[in-house]
Amino acid sequence: MAQVRHSLSMRVALLTGGGDCPGLNAVIRAVVRRVLADGHEAIGYRRGWAGVVDGDSIPLGRANIAGLLPRGGTILLSSRTNPYADGGDGTAIVKERFASDGVYALVAIGGEDTLGVAAKLAADGVPVVGVPKTIDNDLPGTDRTFGFDTAVQIATDAIDRLHTTAESHDRIIIVEVMGRHAGWIACTAGLAGGADLILVPERPFDIEAVCAHLQGRHQTGRSFSIVVVSEGATPIGGEQVTSGGGTDAFGHARLGGVGVWLEQQIAERTGFDARAVILGHVQRGGTATATDRVLATRLGLAAGRAVLDGNFGVMASLRGTEIAYEPLIRALETPRVLDPRVYEDAEVFFG
Amino acid sequence: MAQVRHSLSMRVALLTGGGDCPGLNAVIRAVVRRVLADGHEAIGYRRGWAGVVDGDSIPLGRANIAGLLPRGGTILLSSRTNPYADGGDGTAIVKERFASDGVYALVAIGGEDTLGVAAKLAADGVPVVGVPKTIDNDLPGTDRTFGFDTAVQIATDAIDRLHTTAESHDRIIIVEVMGRHAGWIACTAGLAGGADLILVPERPFDIEAVCAHLQGRHQTGRSFSIVVVSEGATPIGGEQVTSGGGTDAFGHARLGGVGVWLEQQIAERTGFDARAVILGHVQRGGTATATDRVLATRLGLAAGRAVLDGNFGVMASLRGTEIAYEPLIRALETPRVLDPRVYEDAEVFFG
Amino acid sequence: MAQVRHSLSMRVALLTGGGDCPGLNAVIRAVVRRVLADGHEAIGYRRGWAGVVDGDSIPLGRANIAGLLPRGGTILLSSRTNPYADGGDGTAIVKERFASDGVYALVAIGGEDTLGVAAKLAADGVPVVGVPKTIDNDLPGTDRTFGFDTAVQIATDAIDRLHTTAESHDRIIIVEVMGRHAGWIACTAGLAGGADLILVPERPFDIEAVCAHLQGRHQTGRSFSIVVVSEGATPIGGEQVTSGGGTDAFGHARLGGVGVWLEQQIAERTGFDARAVILGHVQRGGTATATDRVLATRLGLAAGRAVLDGNFGVMASLRGTEIAYEPLIRALETPRVLDPRVYEDAEVFFG
Amino acid sequence: MAQVRHSLSMRVALLTGGGDCPGLNAVIRAVVRRVLADGHEAIGYRRGWAGVVDGDSIPLGRANIAGLLPRGGTILLSSRTNPYADGGDGTAIVKERFASDGVYALVAIGGEDTLGVAAKLAADGVPVVGVPKTIDNDLPGTDRTFGFDTAVQIATDAIDRLHTTAESHDRIIIVEVMGRHAGWIACTAGLAGGADLILVPERPFDIEAVCAHLQGRHQTGRSFSIVVVSEGATPIGGEQVTSGGGTDAFGHARLGGVGVWLEQQIAERTGFDARAVILGHVQRGGTATATDRVLATRLGLAAGRAVLDGNFGVMASLRGTEIAYEPLIRALETPRVLDPRVYEDAEVFFG
Repeated sequence: MAQVRHSLSMRVALLTGGGDCPGLNAVIRAVVRRVLADGHEAIGYRRGWAGVVDGDSIPLGRANIAGLLPRGGTILLSSRTNPYADGGDGTAIVKERFASDGVYALVAIGGEDTLGVAAKLAADGVPVVGVPKTIDNDLPGTDRTFGFDTAVQIATDAIDRLHTTAESHDRIIIVEVMGRHAGWIACTAGLAGGADLILVPERPFDIEAVCAHLQGRHQTGRSFSIVVVSEGATPIGGEQVTSGGGTDAFGHARLGGVGVWLEQQIAERTGFDARAVILGHVQRGGTATATDRVLATRLGLAAGRAVLDGNFGVMASLRGTEIAYEPLIRALETPRVLDPRVYEDAEVFFG
Repeated sequence: MAQVRHSLSMRVALLTGGGDCPGLNAVIRAVVRRVLADGHEAIGYRRGWAGVVDGDSIPLGRANIAGLLPRGGTILLSSRTNPYADGGDGTAIVKERFASDGVYALVAIGGEDTLGVAAKLAADGVPVVGVPKTIDNDLPGTDRTFGFDTAVQIATDAIDRLHTTAESHDRIIIVEVMGRHAGWIACTAGLAGGADLILVPERPFDIEAVCAHLQGRHQTGRSFSIVVVSEGATPIGGEQVTSGGGTDAFGHARLGGVGVWLEQQIAERTGFDARAVILGHVQRGGTATATDRVLATRLGLAAGRAVLDGNFGVMASLRGTEIAYEPLIRALETPRVLDPRVYEDAEVFFG
Repeated sequence: MAQVRHSLSMRVALLTGGGDCPGLNAVIRAVVRRVLADGHEAIGYRRGWAGVVDGDSIPLGRANIAGLLPRGGTILLSSRTNPYADGGDGTAIVKERFASDGVYALVAIGGEDTLGVAAKLAADGVPVVGVPKTIDNDLPGTDRTFGFDTAVQIATDAIDRLHTTAESHDRIIIVEVMGRHAGWIACTAGLAGGADLILVPERPFDIEAVCAHLQGRHQTGRSFSIVVVSEGATPIGGEQVTSGGGTDAFGHARLGGVGVWLEQQIAERTGFDARAVILGHVQRGGTATATDRVLATRLGLAAGRAVLDGNFGVMASLRGTEIAYEPLIRALETPRVLDPRVYEDAEVFFG
Repeated sequence: MAQVRHSLSMRVALLTGGGDCPGLNAVIRAVVRRVLADGHEAIGYRRGWAGVVDGDSIPLGRANIAGLLPRGGTILLSSRTNPYADGGDGTAIVKERFASDGVYALVAIGGEDTLGVAAKLAADGVPVVGVPKTIDNDLPGTDRTFGFDTAVQIATDAIDRLHTTAESHDRIIIVEVMGRHAGWIACTAGLAGGADLILVPERPFDIEAVCAHLQGRHQTGRSFSIVVVSEGATPIGGEQVTSGGGTDAFGHARLGGVGVWLEQQIAERTGFDARAVILGHVQRGGTATATDRVLATRLGLAAGRAVLDGNFGVMASLRGTEIAYEPLIRALETPRVLDPRVYEDAEVFFG
């Protein structure tokens, strides 16, 4: 059957789910160009699975994707709708939509939730291919996720700027970056920006030890410190520090989390002038770095190729310098935590 | 007397006071190069007036200022020490220090507080020249202050990034920028970033009108909004909204101010997904834009020239495209509020 | 008549002529928003006057200008077509087009050539308003042109990067920037980037003095030099140095001009390792700085306002911190050369 | 012996050789911090092997490396001096210098030439460890070299800017980037910037096919094209195109190479408006991207670790996401050419 359809023009659908992430449009463009290059056509469902459920789609031809590569966000928009929610028969809903829209197969771009739906659909025989997405870089089954490099660059640029203020005012600056379950952004940006201490979810911290470390630095001649902290870092024995902020729809802590808590604790316990900066959403919007655009493009091309090859139930992933395929189900495994050797590298500079 | 000293090498002192501001090092470099070019020498007091009080100074020769132009912060460090505080005889303290250090005259770079001290000294016959500094752009007596252009560029870059997130998620994003008493940064960055609403200290806002405006936008087809707000903006009849944050040593509101308050109010009143981003200290650190480096350099050269000409009690300022001198005392006048025509220009885009 | 038409919806046309310049799209957006805000409509002629001659126009509603502010280039495209060329009756051609398209008035955005046509039309009673544009900043009648700040920032960023290479390799780096008749970009970026010598069209240079200056620097301990040169700078008594490159359609020198000539001359005459970098078109493309976006937006709003007020034959211009109107004919006056005081400021740092 | 010296403080030397490359200072900082953290000391020879030959070194303590991470260039300066040149007994020279300076071991940071000397020294029993460096990314034995990511980002930013100019003027823009023997920069930046054609040294090109491709694009509705070309790309059957430019001391083509040749050929053969931009040295100076800072830091730490472990004759390299060691001699193998799969990915977008 697939062979027969191959000889004709196939319609390939795309969707993006979950939070914003630099590189989404580059993935969309690459899937579409791959599909068009082989003589097929593409459509995009809007607002993630919601577009499939509601039948809200747009054509994706050359004109629609012109100028898309450097643009932030996703032209397909996004949501957290889950077709299986509230006991719905997601598989039936999606199959019917594909039948009525003449869709041959789907490329789903998203994180744990989006790919979880994709994996269920694949298990039920729906032709789906995934592209893993998380700014936090903790999705299992791939060496790196697109968007991460951009987030790290933005955080590093901010740390560079804050360094001069810290230096000029003998100040401790706490920079809270993204990373709910994993310290990849904090540790990588901390290494790149020359952090004097890095706090990550993988290593609950002792606030007294933190303060003692900062005081030790000042006693040996340093007059300022930059502390980089993941939003998901927690004090030992404590729960996630949210001081009322709660978490947003995509699970990220609202303003007023661990960064503000550390500012207060450090100021009180050490008497130093401490100041928190919460980078927040600035890290996940806007144009992607060259590195992320290349990764997003290569993943998109590979996902498109998998569809054209009838290689379903997989996601495109990075392995070393190569693009590979992993079973979609891998996206649901335990999050990939920070490599302890990277943290040990960063520790050399804490002195 | 001055004539006699002119024929020999004079020692010119510099200091920087108040908060960090991109361009401080460019001013220092320019004053020093101007002074050295005429065969004189320069020293820098460290940590503002504290260095004068304590006698903490460093030489400023060619080697000390090499590579200084693109560097953020101030190599002279800063503080808020006031030699007249607690009834001290600031004039006597400064005169004695200058005598013992062989200082001919001083260039004081700073804001209202620093220049206020400079004006008092000048009134008492101490040879002082000022360079006005405030990131907020509200210092009277000059058309623009250095550092402002950099802050606006950083805020605009952030707004550009946030736009794509707002768009992709049908979201209202509130960007809180600096500006305690004046809306220059908010209005200029809002114009440059395409804000859909701008709230400034000069125009107390009605939270109901704000929400009605945002709802109106959504009813006429816009699916997202960017609101740019000065940290010093207040609701009508209300006091400054600090929700516990208080202000820091330099008078800027701590995290948890009007941006977070607006996030809560807008979300509750409209049901939209609202999210605050507080740019904070990122706006005032790091390398300066070309425009700020040029302004800082021209002001520094003019301040150095004033010292060499014996033209004391003045500050260098920008008038149109030219550098001029204003009496130091002008720095103490009422802050220069936002030009209402600039706000009216921005309003055209609120629809 | 105009009064009658005012009560109805008027159709305002726009066009962009001449070379690319950051901020063009921001001007277009501002004119359109101003016009729409008053209940009128806008169209854009494509490829400058060519679109008027050929009747090639597009509607400019809210949807067409969404997301336009940060985008480089011009969505209206550009050309150097002149409706008066080859003895054509430009006025008649334009009047007929406006009549058939129902155009009430035109906003022409461009440089000397585009505004020259606009001035002729205005003299013949055609309702035209201009917005001056030149990346070189040498257009008379305004204190600054949009695009200039962006070009200076790009050149400054490049000089910053080249500084470290020059330093690490004891090298003389010659940076050729735009500026055919005026040294604004060279002198401003040179001031901002810390140039050790700046060569501009306004001051023909003596190649022997240039080499002696560089040798003098090296003899007094500097191990490298950055020379910033306008593409239009010439040796004394010489003609414009083009070494075969010629000039392009918009009058800018092709690669192989004065920068390459200086590289050869300096290397031969001094024995230093000299290297030319020609920034070229990178200076005039892409997103605009915040400062240029604000200037472009304010000029566009003022041009739109002039049309709505029936104030024709003028161009919007910057005077100090305010937007003013000047007769269109002023754009044809002698180019505005570099302010000698700015060059003198830069000279302080040549030592 | 080594064991005895380990119990005392060891002096570790560093040097940097060859051309400028973003990340050099980050490597230096990391080696020094690693060495200091273990209680040893560090010195730096200036100007590569020349500093060893001449005995020109500086101490590298905490103060010397403060603020080094974001700085471009190399504080140790560089040269192409080879201690074995002209039949010199390099090994004896280096051994004597190390003995008189009390140097325990050396970390040599450089490319093929620098590491070639290091490999010879190691073969003669001199304790040396290497860190591979080339902006071109073609050094064998490592998955990526530091500086490459920065060069790609700078080239991508330039392509983004040039896109808008190409678009606004129906123009073909040829962007010449670094890459003498390998197309890594051209292909990666071309992928990231959305190039419509990429020419690399690994695939000699047919100028007629190039022109036919560009004409084909225009016949199917594209009005502009961006061609990215490595400086070392050559026409089929032709030699390297230098049109008189020659190569510089580090082997990179001078201005007037293949980019200018293509501009002329394309303009003549197709009649399109073609314009070359030669990015040149801007690609190799200035601050490094976060990714390059992290790679440089990790390689520097690993090199320092190798010295402390007595693991000589190796270079630190990247393998997937991990840092590994390779024999120094591997740096002399055939350059690592562009992965053909990456080029094939880029080809999808040429249509």
